[in-house]
Amino acid sequence: MQSLMVNVMIPPFSFARIPHIIFGAGKLNELYNIIPKFGNNVLFVIGGRSLQQSGIWDEITSNLERKSINFSSTSISSEPSPLLIDEVATKFRDKALNLVVGIGGGSVNDAGKSISAMLTKNDSIKNYLEGVGDKTHDGKKIPYIAIPTTSGTGSEATKNAVISEVGPDGFKKSLRHDNLIPNIAIVDPQLMISCPSSISAACGMDAFTQLLEAYVSSKGNPITDTFAYSGMKYMAENLLLACSTGSSDVNVRAAMAYGSLLSGITLANAGLGIIHGLASPIGGMFKIPHGVICGTLLSEATKINIEMLQKLGSEGRKRLKKHAQIGALLTGKYHVEEGMIYQYCSKLIETLEMWTNELKIDRLGKYGIKSEDVEKIVEKAGLKNNPVNLTTESIKTIILNRL
Amino acid sequence: MQSLMVNVMIPPFSFARIPHIIFGAGKLNELYNIIPKFGNNVLFVIGGRSLQQSGIWDEITSNLERKSINFSSTSISSEPSPLLIDEVATKFRDKALNLVVGIGGGSVNDAGKSISAMLTKNDSIKNYLEGVGDKTHDGKKIPYIAIPTTSGTGSEATKNAVISEVGPDGFKKSLRHDNLIPNIAIVDPQLMISCPSSISAACGMDAFTQLLEAYVSSKGNPITDTFAYSGMKYMAENLLLACSTGSSDVNVRAAMAYGSLLSGITLANAGLGIIHGLASPIGGMFKIPHGVICGTLLSEATKINIEMLQKLGSEGRKRLKKHAQIGALLTGKYHVEEGMIYQYCSKLIETLEMWTNELKIDRLGKYGIKSEDVEKIVEKAGLKNNPVNLTTESIKTIILNRL
Repeated sequence: MQSLMVNVMIPPFSFARIPHIIFGAGKLNELYNIIPKFGNNVLFVIGGRSLQQSGIWDEITSNLERKSINFSSTSISSEPSPLLIDEVATKFRDKALNLVVGIGGGSVNDAGKSISAMLTKNDSIKNYLEGVGDKTHDGKKIPYIAIPTTSGTGSEATKNAVISEVGPDGFKKSLRHDNLIPNIAIVDPQLMISCPSSISAACGMDAFTQLLEAYVSSKGNPITDTFAYSGMKYMAENLLLACSTGSSDVNVRAAMAYGSLLSGITLANAGLGIIHGLASPIGGMFKIPHGVICGTLLSEATKINIEMLQKLGSEGRKRLKKHAQIGALLTGKYHVEEGMIYQYCSKLIETLEMWTNELKIDRLGKYGIKSEDVEKIVEKAGLKNNPVNLTTESIKTIILNRL
Repeated sequence: MQSLMVNVMIPPFSFARIPHIIFGAGKLNELYNIIPKFGNNVLFVIGGRSLQQSGIWDEITSNLERKSINFSSTSISSEPSPLLIDEVATKFRDKALNLVVGIGGGSVNDAGKSISAMLTKNDSIKNYLEGVGDKTHDGKKIPYIAIPTTSGTGSEATKNAVISEVGPDGFKKSLRHDNLIPNIAIVDPQLMISCPSSISAACGMDAFTQLLEAYVSSKGNPITDTFAYSGMKYMAENLLLACSTGSSDVNVRAAMAYGSLLSGITLANAGLGIIHGLASPIGGMFKIPHGVICGTLLSEATKINIEMLQKLGSEGRKRLKKHAQIGALLTGKYHVEEGMIYQYCSKLIETLEMWTNELKIDRLGKYGIKSEDVEKIVEKAGLKNNPVNLTTESIKTIILNRL
């Protein structure tokens, strides 16, 4: 029985650099040997409370003191706004920092990346945000080390930092440059064990969304394909476990951290689809965690994408092979017979729906989004590198089915 | 039917950075836009003749002149020696170069990397070679762009440069540092079309050896596994074609170039095995192309490795799953049933033997290696990260069977 492969012809592609990755339980401790290579004056960007409450921050500071490393810290308690980044950059601009280290979830690492990039400038980050300002960042930054504590955004491996201003005219836009890819990513699954189930669930769904959107993206290449497939394999086997009986199992957390890391690498190189095209306006207009937006839209958007591809006849069927491969993967199968494409596509949708229910991913209505908001959201939405063109009506359907 | 996967638990690992990769037919032309970003004073390291004969070098120089880029060039006609690197580095050390660009096979790119690293020093490269000198290179270098014209060593993605002194006390040793990974790799399969069959064959076997040794290495991780597997998939489908009827097909060359690139990334992060552990002393003692050494030893060494693992009982059988996965891959199957491990291992050996014959890979005897040399070769050989321990006798058998 011959299996079915895609992408036999290799299209031209560009692959940005990836951070130096240090992966494994306990690897946080490498930090104290790495810092002196950059210098002795470090700014830590950390989250609101959990790092302090878990005792990890105390452990870090006493290690830094023992090593006579000069450090300051700043705390980020929500998705970063331009005002916040400007304030921190202004405060530390003349402090001759050698290194910025971010330890936290996606918001913390996006803030850390932005700060490291804005320390070298003399104006507001607003001027450099895509679709907001009229300047292009030149990539000059203070070296940055990313240490994720959730398995979600993959921010430890991406070249962009998402900055939000929430409100009726709000936005969620990126500061982006190849050189914003962190110098080093220390991925220590032990740091993720204290992450609560609801956050692990939303983050996990976000990472899986990134992997799936990159895998079926119109801009993918064999390297992003192989990364995305590997990441989904590990996440599929561990997502439900990480949010339930396996939440304290460091191997389960390692698999999730691996998937999340690869999701960052793949999205940076293959782009994303309609789910992230919607996450941007929804996150700008409403106060709702990014992971929840992606998680709640994942199965619906996948269903609509598959339906639209089915309508395209034989060309669509060809392009559905990649969805089918992931449907097969989710049932533990690593090959797709030619006659099984539609069945495995259905399996993909079913599994994503099951995850959405099992993980109790919130519906959008819970955050005050109403049917009358949908028009405005869709106006601002982008298709990004979605594998198929979508009508305005079908994009509306995705949101309406998740209100 | 459930497939069989390995490496479900993710071990701790470190993954070095990779070059910024620009891949595709015609991408050489990007060079002229990239150079000015580094500066206006460039040293080109090129091969002996083929680049000139194909007219590509003329095209490059006229483009450089049109863009008013100052350039010098130096030509490398064999595997680089310490003397050669020292001479070039001395000649160009005070020329305030902004960039070194290497266009050629593995020897040219290893030379280019070494020169870019030795321009920043004031002494001989011998002092910095592993197992030869007593100094450690600090990684400071002039930025380096690698442009391969063969699909072989993967040097465009590795952190080491192999330097050879041939003779009875000869050596083949590496200058190695994470920072020697090229800044950019431009992989343009059009440049490989003029590569003769015998060189394509030896280079292709070398790249496949690197992928297989990294895949079964004791130091692998899920990222190197997924890269190695993807590289072997494309190479397996295109190796024989690239050396015969498909040699002018840019898609065939692209698949080979992709496999070779990934072989460099994987070997840099997962290490190699007994074949490369033998290539080092053989290449130091005899004038024989590196690709021929690896190609000629590939099937024999794989056979011995599999035999030794079979002798280890259930533990060995577990470790043989990875060999079996590649045996399956070579027959177009992407899954291995539990009861089929030994059959697929045999299939792997058979296919490698078939390739060796079809590609007419030279035996070692052709280069003057005799049975009385084997003792001395084995004395100097290293196991590297071979998946199983080998006795001196079994290592001798590998060579004797290929004299």
